[in-house]
Amino acid sequence: MSNAAAEIRWLLEEHLPPLRASVEAALGRTLALSAHCPAILRESMQYSVAAGGKRLRPILVLLSCEACGGELEQALPAAAAIELIHTYSLIHDDLPAMDDDDLRRGQPTNHVKFGEATAILAGDGLLTLAFEVVAGLSIAPDRVVACIRELASGSGAEGMVGGQQADLEAETGGITSVDHLESIHRRKTGRLIGAALRMGGRIAGADDSRLAALTRYGDDIGLAFQIADDLLDLTSTPEMLGKGVQKDAGRNKLTYPGLLGVEESQRRAEALTDDAVSALREAGLMSRGLEALATYVVLRDR
Amino acid sequence: MSNAAAEIRWLLEEHLPPLRASVEAALGRTLALSAHCPAILRESMQYSVAAGGKRLRPILVLLSCEACGGELEQALPAAAAIELIHTYSLIHDDLPAMDDDDLRRGQPTNHVKFGEATAILAGDGLLTLAFEVVAGLSIAPDRVVACIRELASGSGAEGMVGGQQADLEAETGGITSVDHLESIHRRKTGRLIGAALRMGGRIAGADDSRLAALTRYGDDIGLAFQIADDLLDLTSTPEMLGKGVQKDAGRNKLTYPGLLGVEESQRRAEALTDDAVSALREAGLMSRGLEALATYVVLRDR
Repeated sequence: MSNAAAEIRWLLEEHLPPLRASVEAALGRTLALSAHCPAILRESMQYSVAAGGKRLRPILVLLSCEACGGELEQALPAAAAIELIHTYSLIHDDLPAMDDDDLRRGQPTNHVKFGEATAILAGDGLLTLAFEVVAGLSIAPDRVVACIRELASGSGAEGMVGGQQADLEAETGGITSVDHLESIHRRKTGRLIGAALRMGGRIAGADDSRLAALTRYGDDIGLAFQIADDLLDLTSTPEMLGKGVQKDAGRNKLTYPGLLGVEESQRRAEALTDDAVSALREAGLMSRGLEALATYVVLRDR
Repeated sequence: MSNAAAEIRWLLEEHLPPLRASVEAALGRTLALSAHCPAILRESMQYSVAAGGKRLRPILVLLSCEACGGELEQALPAAAAIELIHTYSLIHDDLPAMDDDDLRRGQPTNHVKFGEATAILAGDGLLTLAFEVVAGLSIAPDRVVACIRELASGSGAEGMVGGQQADLEAETGGITSVDHLESIHRRKTGRLIGAALRMGGRIAGADDSRLAALTRYGDDIGLAFQIADDLLDLTSTPEMLGKGVQKDAGRNKLTYPGLLGVEESQRRAEALTDDAVSALREAGLMSRGLEALATYVVLRDR
């Protein structure tokens, strides 16, 4: 475990800060919209993107591109695009008709600040912009098209959007099996994480076996991330997370600790981390960054 | 005028029916989503797409591809995609936080039938699917990328979504100038119409001068369409339109007849039609279909 802690420290203190700075700069360029975009809409889009977060998905694009021998500079727009998708999904999920959240990362949610109509449109605008940005990638056109297919398939009705619908249905319909819970999380979180990794691979020209390894790595850390999230909701304070906690229990949402208990959930998250690392190594992908990230996803405290 | 009437009859009775049938078939294929998409979400997406409408935008993709010498078969997925975008925008525009409409084309709106949360997600799913479908076009990858840029730029925050925001702001902020009104409509309606035409052109490999002509044609018929819509709202019955009428006046929305009077509005719509036809001819685009459509847009009765 002390080796894991050292790798996480290396990741967070040395490897990620410059990558994250590049992502922030790319996001800033991406959101410098022309005057054809009404000022309030632009402000609303920028507000939620700037509200921060870990930039996990863009980082995955970059680490995966790096692991496959690609150039980070080429992957930056795709990294920004996946964060636009993630941000739009948060804005829409927070709406009164959906999860009805007032607070996100310690700030008022988009609809609280800008009103519901603008929040809906800001989400639509970010979603659309993501595809425009990927279409502008400076790589071979067939790779651009492949990236767009990854992004759309991971974030659409058979992926993230479908997962959100399944999640809403589960709140009223109820589920008790771990398989059902995992099928929801795989779509709601895992598919977009997979799209991030596969876009990074596609930009670097990775072959099918490496793309498959990235998918398996993504499935693993996606579920591990969700288990860790459920555990954090149970054990953290609002100050630590910058958002309300124990909302899952209050809402009767199914969670891993709720279904499996805290200890078994932790064990499962660690097994997923191990499998994620194996997936990479078996495909000949030696990536200190992706390996450290798989560990961090489970051991993080917020 | 009798020649115009004959051309419209040819368009509606001979030329469009087979094109529309191809569009319906393409839409059906597009919405045959896998079981990864929750059944209710799929049903909700299919419901609004099936609710019909004139399929004006897909028809524009096909007519424009035809006018530029391309193959209709290749353009069909793009035609379907633009209707997905149009449909998503209607679903989101009808939401309680936006225009709060209960009826659309004589049917309950999506959120009335499926609930607000699913309606939001159905819109998100359709928007995302549109890009996936275009990314699957069987044409050279650089043309696919060009189509995606057209679609994203026309429908995003600097285009249709921005127009919707500007329209919402105008309801409270108020405007009196025709220029302001046109800048809203150009984004809210015109940009997506332009994207439809330019995608058709891109698929057929049209050069820049023809693409510019298609843009001018689209700007013209987009505004003409909007003027005709305003006039229809003023002069029709709910039975004719399949939706509520004179909502514009009740809501203090600015309209062309409100700003210019009925007669001047009609004159302007006809001048736009003439300019649309000139734009095509000056670029050497001889298209009976597009010319008849420009006339129909103004002379239609619903």
